[in-house]
Amino acid sequence: MKTMKEIAKMAGVSQSTVSRVINNNPNVNPEIKRKVLEYIRKYNYQPNRMARSLVKNKSFLIGIVLPELTNPYFPEILESLEEEANYYHYNIVLSITYGSLQREKEQIEMLLSRRVDGLIINPTDLSHVEHITKIKSILPTVICAQDLDGFDYVTVDHYLAGKIVAKYLINKGHINIGYIGYLKDKKLKGFYEEIIANNLNFNEDNYLVAPEEISDSKKISEKKLLTKIIDNNITAVYTINDIIATKVINILIKNKMKVPDDVAVVGFDNTIICNLTNPPLTSVAQPTREIGRKSVDILIKKIEKTNAHTEYILDQIFLPPRLVIRKST
Amino acid sequence: MKTMKEIAKMAGVSQSTVSRVINNNPNVNPEIKRKVLEYIRKYNYQPNRMARSLVKNKSFLIGIVLPELTNPYFPEILESLEEEANYYHYNIVLSITYGSLQREKEQIEMLLSRRVDGLIINPTDLSHVEHITKIKSILPTVICAQDLDGFDYVTVDHYLAGKIVAKYLINKGHINIGYIGYLKDKKLKGFYEEIIANNLNFNEDNYLVAPEEISDSKKISEKKLLTKIIDNNITAVYTINDIIATKVINILIKNKMKVPDDVAVVGFDNTIICNLTNPPLTSVAQPTREIGRKSVDILIKKIEKTNAHTEYILDQIFLPPRLVIRKST
Repeated sequence: MKTMKEIAKMAGVSQSTVSRVINNNPNVNPEIKRKVLEYIRKYNYQPNRMARSLVKNKSFLIGIVLPELTNPYFPEILESLEEEANYYHYNIVLSITYGSLQREKEQIEMLLSRRVDGLIINPTDLSHVEHITKIKSILPTVICAQDLDGFDYVTVDHYLAGKIVAKYLINKGHINIGYIGYLKDKKLKGFYEEIIANNLNFNEDNYLVAPEEISDSKKISEKKLLTKIIDNNITAVYTINDIIATKVINILIKNKMKVPDDVAVVGFDNTIICNLTNPPLTSVAQPTREIGRKSVDILIKKIEKTNAHTEYILDQIFLPPRLVIRKST
Repeated sequence: MKTMKEIAKMAGVSQSTVSRVINNNPNVNPEIKRKVLEYIRKYNYQPNRMARSLVKNKSFLIGIVLPELTNPYFPEILESLEEEANYYHYNIVLSITYGSLQREKEQIEMLLSRRVDGLIINPTDLSHVEHITKIKSILPTVICAQDLDGFDYVTVDHYLAGKIVAKYLINKGHINIGYIGYLKDKKLKGFYEEIIANNLNFNEDNYLVAPEEISDSKKISEKKLLTKIIDNNITAVYTINDIIATKVINILIKNKMKVPDDVAVVGFDNTIICNLTNPPLTSVAQPTREIGRKSVDILIKKIEKTNAHTEYILDQIFLPPRLVIRKST
């Protein structure tokens, strides 16, 4: 492994510059920083972390709180969080809440007791975040893949995603489009507004079933879904994630309906699932890698600045979605 | 939150017994231990971990090294590792190797420098494990979901799984069965032996394509696969994982072949994917939860015993697979 001296020599800078880059000191020319980081990355240079830890009284651990790993979307986010944290020579401590608010509270306390330097959280319930607000004043905290007022966050623009899907389906000639998701979701807001702006209807007939009804795959919800689709001449369905979309495709095909000829289906998240369905699934791609990467970047920036008496400026980042068109539409 | 005193009172034991249970002291009656753990779990009692950490000179962190999170099988394992570690009031530090041996070596070093109390590893390459062997003498280490001589491990019995699949397909009347996987894999060994024991043939014609050829989904491998299936009257295909199985199903259907009428397809891992394919996928279920749980149990047992001068006995556990039959066969 290369030493700091060797890294400095190769980058044509002093050892103290390499040290400043490693410690994220702002007084480094960005171009030089980029160059030094390139060499650090190339040779996988690892400063003595134990020594760093002791000197800085830091753990170099980041706590990650996610609701689940079943939907392949979260493992994708997790991979990119891990990769980026690693790049900064931090490690991640993972906690999973299984959608339980109580567990979320406990997990956050547990992570605090492990002396993590910061937290990245995908909250279970955006209307119950008092415990996260409390933590924020003690520890740098970034909300990941959702937006929450008063917090640093990095998320895809769900509102814009909804608009893009509606525009695409309307352009394809669909007039009656169904939705399977939550009413509060911003995915619906943008979608709804675009439909109304095009003088089309969207009412409770278009709100097909709740996602839970599909997940349970009980016969009764299948029948309800099919009845709503047929009775209202629904020719396209917009769903909140790829798993739900796939279940819809399978229900349709099982009932002798053609996808996309009879009903087009759009998923969300553009996970690995999209290329496994038959037909392959059109889906809204989130910039998963970038969400993970930027969440870590922001968190580490805040961690390194914790002791500086600078004004706190929130980083609130909406990243653009991208519709990946496949044969289900 | 309950105090240790309250937990002791409810369980009808002394505080020192509760303390012994928390510290995994073997001198506790198993029945009493069970009862105390029940109350600890029920009230989510959390001993002061910082204090524990300082007193015991331990981090209460477990390093987890996995190759990837794209195949939903690994997130399932990861969920159960996290859950079980949590139960013992340990946290997990996650490292991903992306199948790179170099990265695996670096990650393990990095975890060491974080002073994790033990490691759970799913090795990238079972024929290159010198670095893991070296670590084993310093730090308790458990191999997860694979078996490796000289190590503690918890894995499904891949050999038995192969036998079960072969038996099932032969009973269904299949004579020419194809395989998509690796030659070294124990999944193939059991499968092959069962086929030969039934006086059926298995030669290079049955070894259809390498998994990488399917993953790339290039036209050429599709054609090769179809040609081999048709030329050799293959009526069933056994694959190394659900992702490969799904790709095979989709290639067959795209080419106007019926699953399972023309060709039956069997996956491996019984992941979330199995209920999303059309038709739903028959697959070998690994006891994922149990693999994760037992890996953590064994590791923590070894961690707690590190200082005791007891003979070291390897825990090498093969768990039974289970064939979950769906409509693809």
